[in-house]
Amino acid sequence: MERLSSLARFKASCPFLGGTKSSTIRHLSTSSSPRFPSLSQLTERATGCPIMGPALALRSNQIVSGYASVAGQADVQQIHHKNGIFPDAVPSESDIQKCPHAAAARAAARMADDLAAAGTHKPAQAKEAHGSVAQQAAASGCPFHKAAVSAPAVKDTAKAPEAAAPEGTFGYGNFFSAELDKKRKDQSYRYFNNINRLAAKFPVAHTADVKKEVQVWCANDYLGMGTNPVVLETMHRAMNKYGAGAGGTRNIAGNSAMHLALENELASLHRKESALVFSSCYVANDATLSTLGSKLPGCVYFSDASNHASMIQGIRHSGAKKVIFKHNDLEDLENKLKQWPVDTPKIIAFESVYSMCGSVGPIEAICDLAKKYGALTFLDEVHAVGLYGPRGAGVAEHLDFEAQQKAGQATSPVKGSIMDRIDIISGTLGKAYGNVGGYVAGSADFIDMIRSYAPGFIFTTSLPPAVVAGARASVIYQKHHVGDRALKQVNVNTVKERFAAKDIPVIPNPSHIVPVLVGDAALAKEASDKLLVDHGIYVQAINYPTVAVGEERLRFTVTPRHTQEQIDGVVQAVDQVFTELNIKRTSDWVREGGRANVGMGMDDVTPIWSQEQINVAGVPRTLKGTEQTVVNIAAVREARADFEELLGKVKPDEDMVAASLVDGALELAAQALPRRPLIPTNVLDHIKPASVAEVSVAA
Amino acid sequence: MERLSSLARFKASCPFLGGTKSSTIRHLSTSSSPRFPSLSQLTERATGCPIMGPALALRSNQIVSGYASVAGQADVQQIHHKNGIFPDAVPSESDIQKCPHAAAARAAARMADDLAAAGTHKPAQAKEAHGSVAQQAAASGCPFHKAAVSAPAVKDTAKAPEAAAPEGTFGYGNFFSAELDKKRKDQSYRYFNNINRLAAKFPVAHTADVKKEVQVWCANDYLGMGTNPVVLETMHRAMNKYGAGAGGTRNIAGNSAMHLALENELASLHRKESALVFSSCYVANDATLSTLGSKLPGCVYFSDASNHASMIQGIRHSGAKKVIFKHNDLEDLENKLKQWPVDTPKIIAFESVYSMCGSVGPIEAICDLAKKYGALTFLDEVHAVGLYGPRGAGVAEHLDFEAQQKAGQATSPVKGSIMDRIDIISGTLGKAYGNVGGYVAGSADFIDMIRSYAPGFIFTTSLPPAVVAGARASVIYQKHHVGDRALKQVNVNTVKERFAAKDIPVIPNPSHIVPVLVGDAALAKEASDKLLVDHGIYVQAINYPTVAVGEERLRFTVTPRHTQEQIDGVVQAVDQVFTELNIKRTSDWVREGGRANVGMGMDDVTPIWSQEQINVAGVPRTLKGTEQTVVNIAAVREARADFEELLGKVKPDEDMVAASLVDGALELAAQALPRRPLIPTNVLDHIKPASVAEVSVAA
Repeated sequence: MERLSSLARFKASCPFLGGTKSSTIRHLSTSSSPRFPSLSQLTERATGCPIMGPALALRSNQIVSGYASVAGQADVQQIHHKNGIFPDAVPSESDIQKCPHAAAARAAARMADDLAAAGTHKPAQAKEAHGSVAQQAAASGCPFHKAAVSAPAVKDTAKAPEAAAPEGTFGYGNFFSAELDKKRKDQSYRYFNNINRLAAKFPVAHTADVKKEVQVWCANDYLGMGTNPVVLETMHRAMNKYGAGAGGTRNIAGNSAMHLALENELASLHRKESALVFSSCYVANDATLSTLGSKLPGCVYFSDASNHASMIQGIRHSGAKKVIFKHNDLEDLENKLKQWPVDTPKIIAFESVYSMCGSVGPIEAICDLAKKYGALTFLDEVHAVGLYGPRGAGVAEHLDFEAQQKAGQATSPVKGSIMDRIDIISGTLGKAYGNVGGYVAGSADFIDMIRSYAPGFIFTTSLPPAVVAGARASVIYQKHHVGDRALKQVNVNTVKERFAAKDIPVIPNPSHIVPVLVGDAALAKEASDKLLVDHGIYVQAINYPTVAVGEERLRFTVTPRHTQEQIDGVVQAVDQVFTELNIKRTSDWVREGGRANVGMGMDDVTPIWSQEQINVAGVPRTLKGTEQTVVNIAAVREARADFEELLGKVKPDEDMVAASLVDGALELAAQALPRRPLIPTNVLDHIKPASVAEVSVAA
Repeated sequence: MERLSSLARFKASCPFLGGTKSSTIRHLSTSSSPRFPSLSQLTERATGCPIMGPALALRSNQIVSGYASVAGQADVQQIHHKNGIFPDAVPSESDIQKCPHAAAARAAARMADDLAAAGTHKPAQAKEAHGSVAQQAAASGCPFHKAAVSAPAVKDTAKAPEAAAPEGTFGYGNFFSAELDKKRKDQSYRYFNNINRLAAKFPVAHTADVKKEVQVWCANDYLGMGTNPVVLETMHRAMNKYGAGAGGTRNIAGNSAMHLALENELASLHRKESALVFSSCYVANDATLSTLGSKLPGCVYFSDASNHASMIQGIRHSGAKKVIFKHNDLEDLENKLKQWPVDTPKIIAFESVYSMCGSVGPIEAICDLAKKYGALTFLDEVHAVGLYGPRGAGVAEHLDFEAQQKAGQATSPVKGSIMDRIDIISGTLGKAYGNVGGYVAGSADFIDMIRSYAPGFIFTTSLPPAVVAGARASVIYQKHHVGDRALKQVNVNTVKERFAAKDIPVIPNPSHIVPVLVGDAALAKEASDKLLVDHGIYVQAINYPTVAVGEERLRFTVTPRHTQEQIDGVVQAVDQVFTELNIKRTSDWVREGGRANVGMGMDDVTPIWSQEQINVAGVPRTLKGTEQTVVNIAAVREARADFEELLGKVKPDEDMVAASLVDGALELAAQALPRRPLIPTNVLDHIKPASVAEVSVAA
């Protein structure tokens, strides 16, 4: 109650706060501005205030990594510019200090924090940016009053029913608020950056301000397949033919030839009998592991300590026993396996590429243990499908590169191969394949059991026809074209070497993951912010709980379409930010005895992709800025032919046009376009006809 | 072992079975034919056999509702036609009886079933169609042998590692197979029909054979928004601009202006502070309820007995206590609520429209109880959003129709309204909005807590930009255009009345759901099959466990775009099938004392949509076959303006073209198209410029 009377006191010093209901302020501060989605309505109005305007601009610079991030800052500056307020510079901290209202404003900001800690209702997501701002407006002369009056009346309805509830009921609002404060206190509260990846400028995105562009260095569209012309063309055509959504569950009206064909394609990719597609691979892992574990009588899961959240949840939801073995530790796994009777159903659940450190599971050795102790193997290849293996089936395929390559596009397994020995493989359509959705592949009976029993598969609308058609085109394209994933590895190797040459600590690993150790949550966030603001480079900081405290990092993803110039730029920028923020270098970690495998003598790692394999793939080389993507014409033709087959060769008029476009996309790009293509001109611009001939010959 | 020697005996009577490894047969029978995805490779080959060909055709007629459904039958006939085998007619049952191989073939089929019961490895999904076929081939003169030899060799690798495992390990394969047999035995094994809904012919779909079309009467694309031009156009443009997939989680590179804008739109739709979008509403319900229940200390769920699987799973996964109250039974709910201390956190989880029976939750009364006992309310509006209320926000909005309509597009709540009193609303983008994805809406802190803690939200790739942009366009369109949902109710009322006039038992309910009672699992399936085969009408049978045994039904969904002629046709067809299969009519149920509210004096139901509300919406009338969809030009303009706003008014050249297309779509359709539109001509054809003027004036 004391706190509330303090709030009332602060409200008295501002005509806006004084004359407006708390719930209205709350509402304004939690509703986005229609014009500037990254700002609240309250903040947008605040930019017009002579006190709040500069304070906001300053604050925006300080808290640059959130919803009110670069985007927010840009929005604020744009409004300033428009309003003619502070067109050239924002006031300095000392200017703000001189302002007669500053002390009161800061006290009000602290009050807002106190109120938050006390669990009083208050705005949420945008609080740190806007909540304090609202309170800072506790100053005379604020134009908010007028704005609030002229805005449509906001009714004071928040929590009315709760307030009138009988005494002693649980305070839900306070509880939610307190849970959020926990997150803020342990530095795990997440601000989402507003990133809009531009198809025609891959890997560039615009922020909340469409004119402010940044390079994306942390997306999981690992190969840029989300902008591949054959994928987009297939999706446009599928959408024209079958509309937007699937319109039902797989059992009721939502099971199309596109869905069946994608599942056939995925089964054939992994040379398994069957595959099943889910809304996402989170759902695939969760639904599969929970169904499997709850069905198998007395089942025990053996789960790698670094497994993904989706596997952890699936195992938990199964209700089955769970034994965690140390990450990639075969001795620990065997010690734990041998403690159970041989006839106990067991499942060893693990990953091929662990996405936060880039380590790779000992797949073959785990298969040996599984055989020895009568266990099923469940391998998550989410960060590997599309990226490894002669056909992009993942690390399990890559480990028998030549034999798998020799088997070509046969759907039957390569006998005794590691991929054949894995019972269940899960994969995603949302990363290297550039779309959305997930799947599992395995024996026909296993897949049919999951299909028949998993609620997370059965009771949900199936993926849109255009999505599954596009994903399928992507899988087919990558099956027939090794160039993208080979070039990706070349670029990954280059970035790792260039970082190493600058003493920048890359956590050593054999995969495409480039984790740069920072070792401190606040520093990692600051480094990420600085790269974004000062260099236009977007790489998200990875902090606890995703990684252990003290092992915070920047996780770079390098694609085949990052150019030489962009690679030069990122190396220079990271080097500069490391210097400016005094972040430890590899040599510092060596002196300190190392951390997270950095500086611990773990650097002798053989990459999954050997130089020989890269050479066989055509010695791909990093693109220059003046060059653009090469589209593999053979893979395009294969994917298109396959689509035609699927549609039963029925071609209405517009399909004919579309077909000729895909087939002739490369030629069209070189000419004045005789017809407007369904895929936009600026995507076609990225296709270099000159480079096509060699690829075409090579393929 | 005895069974295996019997199999060996049968194998001896066919040169194919005799000369081929079991694993090869298994593989062929579980791999789809590349040419005919609904058939196994084995079946495709079997069609060439003089014994198996006719047997297959017969069988295909008998088991017409599965993978080897109309689609399968059509495929088989197509192959026959191609091969010149039985071009005119399939042999009759008596012809088959006369065949010297028939007895052996049938015995072999029985053997296959026996083997299945014993849990031996055998083909799965297609077994009833193909498994028996494989065994029926136990006859001399079978051309399979040659086919098998000439086909690429299928290596015998299945289960090799398992076979070599130490003795006594768990038999996973047998277990999976046995679990499937359980499903088959209790008639709950599901065969998926191959249904490809055609954008240009809504509500018509093609089956596995692109030339064979059927009317869809059970999809959840309730308003046909999956083919609405403004939705498709928005998606094409978003895809051209931002590519296919989102490329990351919301926290890492997958959070775009499109995602934020959709969430703002949904919050504003429900007049709540915030909303959060998930991969699906299954995930939204599961993630929200499991997170909420696990966070709130000592939380108790009060769950309606008819709640959807996703809510049941979410509650289960939370680990919280769960009390089930009888469906829509307020007395039972209150008796259960009062047994818990007033300060115990409680959540009442229920639905507005229950999708399998069409009943509607007593929302206001539940809010009263929630207030009285200090509970939160969680309302699933999945089958209601887009369909009820002046802006399509659902039943909670509809219950204060006039007040909500008067509030217009204001984002603040209508004080004291029922929608305002609901704490948490979940909804889908995959049904009335014609796309995919789900969401929850509620207070800012609540939503932020779910955003911050729910693994099912955090650790998954976000929905594609085109999907969220399209869903948003759909929500905006429906917010500004009441005509589709009003017309849908007119058509629903018509179908219900026409069925009633024919003594066809519709389970009485106040919503848009049209459940026709059959009361027997086999009969319901047979009726569904017959409608599909004889009448080209696709309506899926709903059997146990989705509904109680004895309450099996056909669940019709009627859209605003089902025409007078199609409605005439479905009434005539259902009447005929009821007669042919001797399915009980309403009067029969009355005589028997009724079932599932049919013939139990429960028919006096007031529809949610009153006639007055329909009249206010412009007295919409059922379309004739010669008419086509009317697109509301005001809603199109609103959605487009909104899209422009979102893109910051940056218009590269191709955007200009696209923009002019949406704006002028209606005019374009009336003229020779001056430019090729991104949306296909045949979709534009469905827009009748003549009808636009009235709607435009009305809007």
